[in-house]
Amino acid sequence: MDELLRRGLARFKGLVAGRSRPRSLAEKDLPALQRQLQECVDGLGGEVSARQRAARLAATYLSLDDSGRRTMLRLIATAFGPDAEKVASTHAAWQQALGTNAAWDAEARLRDALGSRRTRILTHFSSMPDGVKFLVDLRADLIRYARSDPALAALDRELEAQLVSWFDVGFLELVRITWQSPAALLEKLIRYEAVHAIGSWEDLKNRLDSDRRCYAFFHPRMPLEPLIFVEVALVDEIAANVQALLDPDAPVFDAEHANTAIFYSINNTQTGLRGVSFGNFLLKRVVEDLKRDYPRLKTFSTLSPIPGLTAWAGEHSDLVEESIGESDWRRLKAAGVPATDGKGLLAWLSSDREWAARPATARALRDPLQRVAARYLVEGRRGDRPADPVARFHLGNGARIERLNWLGDTADKGLAQSWGMMVNYLYDPDRIEANVEAFMAAKPPDASASLRRMARH
Amino acid sequence: MDELLRRGLARFKGLVAGRSRPRSLAEKDLPALQRQLQECVDGLGGEVSARQRAARLAATYLSLDDSGRRTMLRLIATAFGPDAEKVASTHAAWQQALGTNAAWDAEARLRDALGSRRTRILTHFSSMPDGVKFLVDLRADLIRYARSDPALAALDRELEAQLVSWFDVGFLELVRITWQSPAALLEKLIRYEAVHAIGSWEDLKNRLDSDRRCYAFFHPRMPLEPLIFVEVALVDEIAANVQALLDPDAPVFDAEHANTAIFYSINNTQTGLRGVSFGNFLLKRVVEDLKRDYPRLKTFSTLSPIPGLTAWAGEHSDLVEESIGESDWRRLKAAGVPATDGKGLLAWLSSDREWAARPATARALRDPLQRVAARYLVEGRRGDRPADPVARFHLGNGARIERLNWLGDTADKGLAQSWGMMVNYLYDPDRIEANVEAFMAAKPPDASASLRRMARH
Amino acid sequence: MDELLRRGLARFKGLVAGRSRPRSLAEKDLPALQRQLQECVDGLGGEVSARQRAARLAATYLSLDDSGRRTMLRLIATAFGPDAEKVASTHAAWQQALGTNAAWDAEARLRDALGSRRTRILTHFSSMPDGVKFLVDLRADLIRYARSDPALAALDRELEAQLVSWFDVGFLELVRITWQSPAALLEKLIRYEAVHAIGSWEDLKNRLDSDRRCYAFFHPRMPLEPLIFVEVALVDEIAANVQALLDPDAPVFDAEHANTAIFYSINNTQTGLRGVSFGNFLLKRVVEDLKRDYPRLKTFSTLSPIPGLTAWAGEHSDLVEESIGESDWRRLKAAGVPATDGKGLLAWLSSDREWAARPATARALRDPLQRVAARYLVEGRRGDRPADPVARFHLGNGARIERLNWLGDTADKGLAQSWGMMVNYLYDPDRIEANVEAFMAAKPPDASASLRRMARH
Amino acid sequence: MDELLRRGLARFKGLVAGRSRPRSLAEKDLPALQRQLQECVDGLGGEVSARQRAARLAATYLSLDDSGRRTMLRLIATAFGPDAEKVASTHAAWQQALGTNAAWDAEARLRDALGSRRTRILTHFSSMPDGVKFLVDLRADLIRYARSDPALAALDRELEAQLVSWFDVGFLELVRITWQSPAALLEKLIRYEAVHAIGSWEDLKNRLDSDRRCYAFFHPRMPLEPLIFVEVALVDEIAANVQALLDPDAPVFDAEHANTAIFYSINNTQTGLRGVSFGNFLLKRVVEDLKRDYPRLKTFSTLSPIPGLTAWAGEHSDLVEESIGESDWRRLKAAGVPATDGKGLLAWLSSDREWAARPATARALRDPLQRVAARYLVEGRRGDRPADPVARFHLGNGARIERLNWLGDTADKGLAQSWGMMVNYLYDPDRIEANVEAFMAAKPPDASASLRRMARH
Repeated sequence: MDELLRRGLARFKGLVAGRSRPRSLAEKDLPALQRQLQECVDGLGGEVSARQRAARLAATYLSLDDSGRRTMLRLIATAFGPDAEKVASTHAAWQQALGTNAAWDAEARLRDALGSRRTRILTHFSSMPDGVKFLVDLRADLIRYARSDPALAALDRELEAQLVSWFDVGFLELVRITWQSPAALLEKLIRYEAVHAIGSWEDLKNRLDSDRRCYAFFHPRMPLEPLIFVEVALVDEIAANVQALLDPDAPVFDAEHANTAIFYSINNTQTGLRGVSFGNFLLKRVVEDLKRDYPRLKTFSTLSPIPGLTAWAGEHSDLVEESIGESDWRRLKAAGVPATDGKGLLAWLSSDREWAARPATARALRDPLQRVAARYLVEGRRGDRPADPVARFHLGNGARIERLNWLGDTADKGLAQSWGMMVNYLYDPDRIEANVEAFMAAKPPDASASLRRMARH
Repeated sequence: MDELLRRGLARFKGLVAGRSRPRSLAEKDLPALQRQLQECVDGLGGEVSARQRAARLAATYLSLDDSGRRTMLRLIATAFGPDAEKVASTHAAWQQALGTNAAWDAEARLRDALGSRRTRILTHFSSMPDGVKFLVDLRADLIRYARSDPALAALDRELEAQLVSWFDVGFLELVRITWQSPAALLEKLIRYEAVHAIGSWEDLKNRLDSDRRCYAFFHPRMPLEPLIFVEVALVDEIAANVQALLDPDAPVFDAEHANTAIFYSINNTQTGLRGVSFGNFLLKRVVEDLKRDYPRLKTFSTLSPIPGLTAWAGEHSDLVEESIGESDWRRLKAAGVPATDGKGLLAWLSSDREWAARPATARALRDPLQRVAARYLVEGRRGDRPADPVARFHLGNGARIERLNWLGDTADKGLAQSWGMMVNYLYDPDRIEANVEAFMAAKPPDASASLRRMARH
Repeated sequence: MDELLRRGLARFKGLVAGRSRPRSLAEKDLPALQRQLQECVDGLGGEVSARQRAARLAATYLSLDDSGRRTMLRLIATAFGPDAEKVASTHAAWQQALGTNAAWDAEARLRDALGSRRTRILTHFSSMPDGVKFLVDLRADLIRYARSDPALAALDRELEAQLVSWFDVGFLELVRITWQSPAALLEKLIRYEAVHAIGSWEDLKNRLDSDRRCYAFFHPRMPLEPLIFVEVALVDEIAANVQALLDPDAPVFDAEHANTAIFYSINNTQTGLRGVSFGNFLLKRVVEDLKRDYPRLKTFSTLSPIPGLTAWAGEHSDLVEESIGESDWRRLKAAGVPATDGKGLLAWLSSDREWAARPATARALRDPLQRVAARYLVEGRRGDRPADPVARFHLGNGARIERLNWLGDTADKGLAQSWGMMVNYLYDPDRIEANVEAFMAAKPPDASASLRRMARH
Repeated sequence: MDELLRRGLARFKGLVAGRSRPRSLAEKDLPALQRQLQECVDGLGGEVSARQRAARLAATYLSLDDSGRRTMLRLIATAFGPDAEKVASTHAAWQQALGTNAAWDAEARLRDALGSRRTRILTHFSSMPDGVKFLVDLRADLIRYARSDPALAALDRELEAQLVSWFDVGFLELVRITWQSPAALLEKLIRYEAVHAIGSWEDLKNRLDSDRRCYAFFHPRMPLEPLIFVEVALVDEIAANVQALLDPDAPVFDAEHANTAIFYSINNTQTGLRGVSFGNFLLKRVVEDLKRDYPRLKTFSTLSPIPGLTAWAGEHSDLVEESIGESDWRRLKAAGVPATDGKGLLAWLSSDREWAARPATARALRDPLQRVAARYLVEGRRGDRPADPVARFHLGNGARIERLNWLGDTADKGLAQSWGMMVNYLYDPDRIEANVEAFMAAKPPDASASLRRMARH
């Protein structure tokens, strides 16, 4: 048995290292697979054996191609659900017992009946070496497969609930990442940074210099694997431009004199942890850590992208039209912008990739586009939440919208998604709680006077 | 708010350190407390605030006396259960949808409706510093209170399920404990060792000598707090006598030449983790670790107490009677034992505390009492499990009953619970799985030929 | 060869563990031993072999009894000194070359000629596991043997020079010791504490409580072996009484409110490091560390014994006589002290062990004896240094004599050496440098006005 | 004072970080500098102050340009030497005392008189943060300056002696370097690798893969700064070609099946530690570590360059001539090599950079050039040591010359220094000691039969 496991794990490692080819799952193998899953649920031979069976099943899963994995997950979803009759009878017993002392036991029995053997199979994987990472990656598969399959969507919700329990913020460790951190970890920052790509090890070293800070949350069972990380610059005023922050040739600022911390990049790294929230805890803990080390810090602000702006504007060209007055159109014309209405302007902006480099044109566009952006941030809604995903995150954490930064990100991506604008969200300890409550109650977000003025224009 | 939390935590720490007096909970405070609990469930002000509220509730809990704590837990149990009507309607919807695609969503909705707000309150405590230990200790309270209160018993089952998830063996770390370990940890071994009490730091040092090993499981969020630990002696034959193993003046054995590892003490330390099983994983991992360090080791055996023997014999004096033949009675009489039947013998044994020190008496008692012990171990049952709790643990892990050791523990406790006998359970890798299956199927336990012979006598 | 070394080291470890009997060194073994030493010097077979030979020689040394060790060290001292003729010729060449460019090379050649093969033998021991500790312990032997043997005294000076180089303060690590430190280390604090004996592990834990600090210097090659350690109490006024500080039942003080750090015990642990000074660096570094953690700390003071007082008074009974006026004698008589002159008083004090417990007697003795103590501390000299060894240490580090504490240490040792008095030396950052210079220039020590007044009386 | 030091250190750090411009040392500053040095020697104000003065002097040194540093070191060399008269008188006293007990003291006094105040100044630098690294770097300067200056050469010898004592192999830690090591350390491997340049982080990761090992020696006071490191490949036969070993696309070998460890690159990293030998200890320790982890390893071999071959051949063209017979010349001619004598061949080889890529030419050159190389390795001498520096290192450590590898390194450097050949030195535990002794006695090196045959040809 132990020899079998050893071989299984060796194969598993080979697969993790990507050295074997994925294989398909034949129809005729399904009964055997179901039997194995059943044995794993039954716990025949005790807990230890059940875990070893799970490890072998995990190795099987990893050896499969996408279609095989989907089939295997469907098998788990469909063949190991609750027993409807037992649920019905325990439910009836509970309803009847309500109000008596017998209700307590009855409730527990109903919960047991509904308790899922699917989860039992999934959690057994955790005791393998790297088992937790295996489950997180399996969930990333599951999310993909579940889009078009309600059975897998249900399995996904069960796995999510399990991961929410395991990745409870109480179990996470806040770690400061520096140039002294293991290369195997830093390599992952390079891979995971999605907001402002890290171009090289030299670039990374620059982001870990003495006027920078980088923090991540780790789970004790996924060492060297950051779950979420934030990059911070210590400066002496709120930053308006991300290219300046990322410039490797900029002089190093003496962090002892900093009064402002700019969170200029926040990245969730594990697709498989979607729905497990810890970003807000991260920012809170980072602020505490920074305050202790740099008592002079007074302002905590982000320098954030506005990823949904141009798409939203495309859907609301009437509002764009509203934001532009007669005199604006005249100035735009003088600056060589050929458009004469909102739609036309949007079309022209997405076709001319060079406008930001022409000072006169950029100057003429500035006020009208900032008004559109302000309106989007302050008023744009998807359901009863802010339309912009980054705004949703920060406003939900209690920040306020502080300042728009014209041409704050002139990289291609920045121009395409938000006409080069960035925004500062400000974390003011005295307002956070009230802001979160306003957010929960779907009230208008906290915003600076100037932003509100622009939005109202 | 942060200031409040700070004061709350300071008080909490003061309480942990045992520097404040517990106080009672007045009837008039209950509505406010319920409101606080409700706010914690509602998550008003966001996740971070909800956690802070939980921390304050935890401080309140710790400040209370037993009666106050019981009242507060009852409040959680009774006021935050599932909504019976919502459960009924989601249940009906699910039953109706069975067999259609809509069933998947309906199942999830039913599960949500049954999902407990009680657990939500409890898990929020985990994000405090020392929050996990707080919950484990709270459960120790709960177990005590729940004996006579079905509502609290139900709450206990929910908390147990949560702890089972958090203390999944995949999250535990196996740590070898040595004389280089922190004093703050070693101090706890002294406190927690319940099988063979550790008399002093000198005694402890002796148990961590070069021919000894000590291992424990730790949870990443409860540092310096062993969950279970096992003490091992490396020797060259199966040990028969625990006093010899514990003798601080015995010469140190050269562990390089050991062929046998004796697990002579295993201790669960946290009452609040009752029902969370990891003992079997511990032994498995320890065996692997020992094998790697000492390739010559061939035999892995316990030297275990038989805690339930004399109590069981008291309940089955007829079986005792059966185990003693004519010639035995003659020999006992000659050796000065005044009893003439089973009951009388049992009574005399518990009244004469010195018999083990009289060689002739002890010799005469040896065979009859060993027969009783063998029968108890091999045949004694409580329900469909072995009657002896230690036998239950080891047989459930796949061990076999190998050998009885006459006068293996002549300390008072040993004489009182098992007439000074100890037993070796043997872990033979080739038999473990089969033994576990036999155990699960409630078949007779694996036992050596000589033990079976004695039991059959 | 490696097998030999392995056996040698095994034996060496056995000896370290004290499991073998020391043996004597026979006359007939000396030539072989000298040959081995010579081979070690010659480095035949390369550096690695030379080190292995040294390890075998170390094992030999450890196996010997005192007389054998002394003989072996004498052999090293006498047979491996410099070549007098070569020294003479290189010396002549250097003197002749002085003033020319050739002098540089000549100086180096003279230094080489004088360079000691003895040191070469000794330093080779360092590459063994535990080799540095071996040398420190060897030096402790050497110090003992050298008292009556100038050859060994010379060898001792060479070894001291080597240890001074290795134990340069730049190589030492300041470590804070807590109850989380390894038991193997804490055990040594108990063993090494010589100022105020640590009675038990409980007592030790009390000295590491949250209102205490303990720091030690460690050498990277002697892990778990503190070289010097200081115990600190955080309090809110200068402590006057050591029994109060050591009282395990005293309430724990909230260190956050402390304004004063009392260094109440400083211990050098390694006899073999005599002459290697690092105590002053320790105090400086500890003060810095405390200031960073507790910015409210303003006063850094010792609570020190006065070990040489009564012995000095015995040698200067005339000065004692001077310190006692007419009225003093009257008051003493009234309080039941039978003496009528200085000598008599001293004799009576050392014969009556109970006087400190009689309030009236103690009150009458207070002023006269404090005057004697003040005079001893301020004026008592041994050569051009303070007579009291503890005063010598602290005044040499720049402290000032701040306050006498009547009955500050009423343990037997305290009464015997200083009539129960203790003294506070104060470290005032603004005065330290000036005080050290005054000390180096053999000027009178810095002392508080009241102490100077008492001394002048 | 402390404020001064703080400013001094801040400046020092700025200089280390390369943020300030070096400045020159004016003639008029010399008296003040000499006074500072004198104060540092005198230790006025105690040891602590002396160290602080040293830190300020170090900051001064670092702020200077090359000419200023040279002047400052000259000042230390010339103004703080021994007092010639005192040396003369103590020398005379010692010579006179020889044979009496007074000689011991006299010898110590002579040694004291000769003892250098220069060393005292230098060692004081060590107590700064990074002080040891400062001294190592200072010595790198000194080595450069000393080439043309006997005074600085003498100072260098004193500093070397001090560094030999501090960097005694007993103080070094062997550390295995992996991809989990801090990036700040790995960055230095990239910088320091001089044998086979590391082209990128990807290349480095490849060299730390599971079939590779990398070890370094560290000094406790120079963390993250490897002193010497060796790169090892685990393979199943002696490697002949370094390009194959370095190929990032080669499949990863399963190290569990390796029987051979190839040391393919050894680098000393600190110029300032010239003369401090630890390379031999490194190899010995690495072999031990590898043997423990991979018991199947039987062969330990290098794959080494032959850096001095072509230069040596240029100086000994007659020997080249001897190595080439009639038939060789014919074959060379047929393969298109135009040369007709040794000199001509050497000239042609260094002018035609492409010959190695022409199979027929390379084949014709193979035997003659291997004969030259074999002769160089086996017989080439510089004084009584092997002429080749790499041969000197490995033969001095007890290796034997095992095998020549034709076209083992076809990079430009390899072709230029050794016509593309590499050599395996073999470490055979059974021969090491004998080989080292042969080396010390300047006997011919151990070499395989085939190599000796080639050399004798």
